Amino acid sequence: MRNLKFTVRYNNTDFSGWQTQPGYRTVQETIEKAFGAITLEARVRINCSGRTDAGVHSVGQVFNAFTATQIGAAKLVKALNSKLPEDIAITACEEVSQSFDANSDAVRKLYRYVINDTHIPDPFLRKYAWQTRRILDAARMHRSGQVLLGRHDFRCFETNYPNRLTSIRTITHFAVSRFGECLWIDVEADGFLYNMVRAIAGTLYQIGRGYWPEEYMQTVIDGMDRGIAGPTAPPGGLFLIRVTY
Amino acid sequence: MRNLKFTVRYNNTDFSGWQTQPGYRTVQETIEKAFGAITLEARVRINCSGRTDAGVHSVGQVFNAFTATQIGAAKLVKALNSKLPEDIAITACEEVSQSFDANSDAVRKLYRYVINDTHIPDPFLRKYAWQTRRILDAARMHRSGQVLLGRHDFRCFETNYPNRLTSIRTITHFAVSRFGECLWIDVEADGFLYNMVRAIAGTLYQIGRGYWPEEYMQTVIDGMDRGIAGPTAPPGGLFLIRVTY
Repeated sequence: MRNLKFTVRYNNTDFSGWQTQPGYRTVQETIEKAFGAITLEARVRINCSGRTDAGVHSVGQVFNAFTATQIGAAKLVKALNSKLPEDIAITACEEVSQSFDANSDAVRKLYRYVINDTHIPDPFLRKYAWQTRRILDAARMHRSGQVLLGRHDFRCFETNYPNRLTSIRTITHFAVSRFGECLWIDVEADGFLYNMVRAIAGTLYQIGRGYWPEEYMQTVIDGMDRGIAGPTAPPGGLFLIRVTY
Repeated sequence: MRNLKFTVRYNNTDFSGWQTQPGYRTVQETIEKAFGAITLEARVRINCSGRTDAGVHSVGQVFNAFTATQIGAAKLVKALNSKLPEDIAITACEEVSQSFDANSDAVRKLYRYVINDTHIPDPFLRKYAWQTRRILDAARMHRSGQVLLGRHDFRCFETNYPNRLTSIRTITHFAVSRFGECLWIDVEADGFLYNMVRAIAGTLYQIGRGYWPEEYMQTVIDGMDRGIAGPTAPPGGLFLIRVTY
């Protein structure tokens, strides 16, 4: 069996997230069906870097799959894209060692949360950005989030803590940038807790609109209490950008 | 009664076009309902520069409406946007003379047709661009379309000719530009025939992929026959950008 590593983009608007759930249209099941239709393998199982929730998009999700097919990588990408619906596109495929596991071998992931902060929201961004109808101070948000960098207990940003063995994670990159009428909140870490980026975005929103002082981010981290952080920002603004192995 | 002129953006993905049709969600009816809810007028009728078909978007559609309300223009924009769904946004409002008619006073309209011409289509553009899965030669398309400029009989690009009194129109601006993985086909004219921009886009596609020679555009115009032009490009790539009065 060959072990293949794929990179995939998907627009999650019309999916119920990644993970297969009976009765719902999911990214995982849609890819597995297309894969099986091409390789004629009865049971294809794909293993991703970490599932994304309903409404959360991807431009750089990675998964691996074991297959007996002898179709070459480039040809397989073409064949899969011709079978896949318009809201999923495989962008890369390569053969990897037998031991490669897209989930447990992921070293870092970069997520981007997009905010469209105009008084008059852009109708074309409604599924791709949080439309706040308020103008936010991007520089203030950028400064306030610098304390997120490094190794911390991030349970303050975890929905339904505890979900995992530990809520300690290391954030290696954090930046808020403005591009015209949109803000990008970029967060790269060795792993994420449930809804962590969306809770960070909601907290930055409160700081960006002036409701909380810039220093409040440290208070949230120190408080270790989800109740004192901001709201969970809506899913449509969140994109998985890159997985590093 | 005041006569108000509005500019409106809409994402037509989830609408059945502009014009009210019983049993369908249309842009016109949605705006009229919001308007009536704010001004408390029983019968509001809005009059646009020209209806757009199902799937065709707008960033600069214009309409006018007569109203007895005394609410100021800026406040009315805010009130309307708070009532309107996320896929419609009023961007401007001003009081105009009693004689202004958004439809018959329109002097020129600029339409933009967007093509995403990568081998691997972008899942986020699927409702906003024609995804050709072929790379097109933008410079060749730009050159071939120069013969469209000026006053011509454009029945070769009209679906179900004849729909209007005359199929003679004047194109005042034509350009094809590349922006990364997208092409913009900009066409400005004193008026458009049914599906005219989409038929021009379909013809340019055949030229851009090398199926027809660059000079074929002149043959199409001279032929005065819809059958020899290219296919009608899908509606989602088309945007009404600007109406000039």
